[in-house]
Amino acid sequence: MKAKVHVTLKSGVLDPQGKAVGHALTALGFDGVLGVRQGKYIELDIAETDPVKAKPLVEDMCRKLLANTVIENFAIDLEG
Amino acid sequence: MKAKVHVTLKSGVLDPQGKAVGHALTALGFDGVLGVRQGKYIELDIAETDPVKAKPLVEDMCRKLLANTVIENFAIDLEG
Repeated sequence: MKAKVHVTLKSGVLDPQGKAVGHALTALGFDGVLGVRQGKYIELDIAETDPVKAKPLVEDMCRKLLANTVIENFAIDLEG
Repeated sequence: MKAKVHVTLKSGVLDPQGKAVGHALTALGFDGVLGVRQGKYIELDIAETDPVKAKPLVEDMCRKLLANTVIENFAIDLEG
């Protein structure tokens, strides 16, 4: 099944990459950009087909590798 | 309003970053990882409040800066 993982910086954590994107958009003439936060989006294709087992498995992957839980949150969507 | 943008590599485009994540997960003992694709997730806070105007505005941002449309697709969700 497919697992879609969003990894985002916790609120309060500085996001220089997002800031840079915001400045670049303003420089390109896009006014009215109030804020930009950039995160990661990871699509996993896993052999496990039972959502009940897949959820904790992917959570474990997030904690061990995909997200730095000190500064990042993660959200998991399972599909099919 | 908020715009959530997903930028993903087009299918067929090699994703060495995703491959590296897949290998790392396997090395950590996660069997059954069949594939990993990594993309970007960008949250924009824009002054425009009309979804009808915001959609093409954000599409324009994607084409001009956020996505490389030669190798990447983008998807936009508007909120609030």
